[in-house]
Amino acid sequence: MAIISLITDIGVQDEYVGLMKAVILGIDPAAVIVDVSHAVNPQDIAQAAFLLESSYGYFPPGSIHLVVVDPGVGTSRAVLYLEAHAHRFLAPDNGVLSLVMGGPTAMSLRRVDNPSWQRRPVSTTFHGRDIFAPAAAHLSRGAEVRELGPELNLNAVTILTDLRAQACDDGGVNGRVVHIDRFGNVVTNIDSAAIRQAQTVSSGRSVEVRIGGHVISGLSRTYADGDTGRPLALIGSRGYLEIAVNRGSAQQVFGIRSGDAVTLRTVK
Amino acid sequence: MAIISLITDIGVQDEYVGLMKAVILGIDPAAVIVDVSHAVNPQDIAQAAFLLESSYGYFPPGSIHLVVVDPGVGTSRAVLYLEAHAHRFLAPDNGVLSLVMGGPTAMSLRRVDNPSWQRRPVSTTFHGRDIFAPAAAHLSRGAEVRELGPELNLNAVTILTDLRAQACDDGGVNGRVVHIDRFGNVVTNIDSAAIRQAQTVSSGRSVEVRIGGHVISGLSRTYADGDTGRPLALIGSRGYLEIAVNRGSAQQVFGIRSGDAVTLRTVK
Amino acid sequence: MAIISLITDIGVQDEYVGLMKAVILGIDPAAVIVDVSHAVNPQDIAQAAFLLESSYGYFPPGSIHLVVVDPGVGTSRAVLYLEAHAHRFLAPDNGVLSLVMGGPTAMSLRRVDNPSWQRRPVSTTFHGRDIFAPAAAHLSRGAEVRELGPELNLNAVTILTDLRAQACDDGGVNGRVVHIDRFGNVVTNIDSAAIRQAQTVSSGRSVEVRIGGHVISGLSRTYADGDTGRPLALIGSRGYLEIAVNRGSAQQVFGIRSGDAVTLRTVK
Repeated sequence: MAIISLITDIGVQDEYVGLMKAVILGIDPAAVIVDVSHAVNPQDIAQAAFLLESSYGYFPPGSIHLVVVDPGVGTSRAVLYLEAHAHRFLAPDNGVLSLVMGGPTAMSLRRVDNPSWQRRPVSTTFHGRDIFAPAAAHLSRGAEVRELGPELNLNAVTILTDLRAQACDDGGVNGRVVHIDRFGNVVTNIDSAAIRQAQTVSSGRSVEVRIGGHVISGLSRTYADGDTGRPLALIGSRGYLEIAVNRGSAQQVFGIRSGDAVTLRTVK
Repeated sequence: MAIISLITDIGVQDEYVGLMKAVILGIDPAAVIVDVSHAVNPQDIAQAAFLLESSYGYFPPGSIHLVVVDPGVGTSRAVLYLEAHAHRFLAPDNGVLSLVMGGPTAMSLRRVDNPSWQRRPVSTTFHGRDIFAPAAAHLSRGAEVRELGPELNLNAVTILTDLRAQACDDGGVNGRVVHIDRFGNVVTNIDSAAIRQAQTVSSGRSVEVRIGGHVISGLSRTYADGDTGRPLALIGSRGYLEIAVNRGSAQQVFGIRSGDAVTLRTVK
Repeated sequence: MAIISLITDIGVQDEYVGLMKAVILGIDPAAVIVDVSHAVNPQDIAQAAFLLESSYGYFPPGSIHLVVVDPGVGTSRAVLYLEAHAHRFLAPDNGVLSLVMGGPTAMSLRRVDNPSWQRRPVSTTFHGRDIFAPAAAHLSRGAEVRELGPELNLNAVTILTDLRAQACDDGGVNGRVVHIDRFGNVVTNIDSAAIRQAQTVSSGRSVEVRIGGHVISGLSRTYADGDTGRPLALIGSRGYLEIAVNRGSAQQVFGIRSGDAVTLRTVK
């Protein structure tokens, strides 16, 4: 028995998530399934990659993480099985694993293509139910990993190298919004390493964040710093720069949407 | 132990679903509960019937499917227990079981009225918690089916015969929208059998679909057929005609709502 | 093994609830977790207190109820463990336990501060994941209650005395809206005891309810009493006065929001 976590863009209003769970429990009745999020923006690979990176480490080692954000469903894109950081991941080969494949860790990778582990007939539109869910359940019940399919070279899969914002030569960082949470807090792809590097390059100490025509000076420590309604920038619990409004919604105040540009500059 | 699936119109923002689970787990701590959908339009029996038909077959045989979409709660309408297709169903006697009672299958039916299996006092407004949940849990823990209540004749219960659209004599099919999913895909009650029959009657080969003043010619194979933003019609994974827009929302493009008319005509 | 119920204001679109479950299952893999609601209005302590009072009694005795509605997260406010009514509660010391601490019951109370039971590093913004979830899981796996932290005097914690509306001397009751459900039914903090007391004080028999400029005369028995679209007042399944519209949404008809004033007067 293992824990199976789910990150998808299929929502919970329809029967789709329930069908994935039905298929899993039909194969491994003892599987424990945890919903991480089904509210990823449709086909937003970057958001899913960030949610996965932000969540897997809170699960026990050996957990199986399913990511079904899959614009290429029905095409020839591969389905991947990754072992990394003592966790197991199942995802389409579209870059959604790019962030968890970073950092120092032993990794192994397989193509998931065992036909006897697919639910028949395989739909052209819902591999989450017909390919991902059964693969996770067979792993959960203790099947051999090599039954999933052949090993793959780590270089053979899609890696998106621009998910995390990088510091520029002029001491700035050009990033973007990757997630907006229930409270309207805006999560960017600018991490503390990029900020430190920008500060080193430019010898700047303080930072200025620009988003949607607004400028926020300096970094705060908590969402509650300063006055009610005051916009602030901070490094959130995920390790990335966030824009928030004390007791308000940064999303509403700034009219921000996922994908919008965020720039950070250092100030002496 | 069995799997108990839930289809309701009570949403997940309130405590209602949690109370049903609390009651189930108090009776059978080993029950495994799967949410199929709690977002059925309030009191929309047709939508619930379609969701049930689209979902139960993915669960292992013997699963217990609770449908709590119940405009007649508190009146004298019966509560039903149905065995069909190797599955078990609990639902109000309002037609919501009409679709799963179709097709070739051995069926048996009971009235659920064992007072010692009801949570006291029985609320006049929430039988999901006080009657359906305990009945499912007693079945899940292995109680005898005959303890539920007396057998019923299959003719004694409400069957809605107009849920599925039927082909007309002129080779057309007059249907309606029964479900709209997270992506704005519009599911109709026109199934592939009705389309085939219409084609046979009229000797037509191709089809035209009309919805909200728009005409869509021909059937596509996947949601991604053709150009971005192009409306298309296809037989979806549920076996029914769906209207979709490639990388868009058919609901928004057409301004469609549940219950709206959809007509299909054959073309030579 | 015990059941752990969750009431929070963190929503289900983000990964937050999933992380709480991940932490719980990492400590007690056999824990059974039930979502009661994650849709509490952000930081609305009164609403959470009512949801808790309305839900815990449906769970088996010994269940552990986590309430993470916590405007003071990151400050020095204590985390509380309460035993009352044969149930166990974990919540911040902000008054959210006020209603379950009422009524005749043996109670015991502890401060939750065992550092070895906290997830490190403890975030300043998400004690649900780092303090509440591990405490619940350790209790669920059978750890000794005294390991949570020191006993507290019942007088040492925050009790909000104005959550329930009280009858006034003139035979009226001034209350407010504390919850609005999926159907637009409006739940107030006026309970049947306050209504009985008002009737006794004033010798009034019937009641009039005023909300947002409207007057509703008399109490109905069910949501379906009277004509479609007719506003009505009734004592709901939670034991509190509710305003509803037969087959409609009282919230929309009256334009009501949480916190709005509701007054009840007796009529001879």
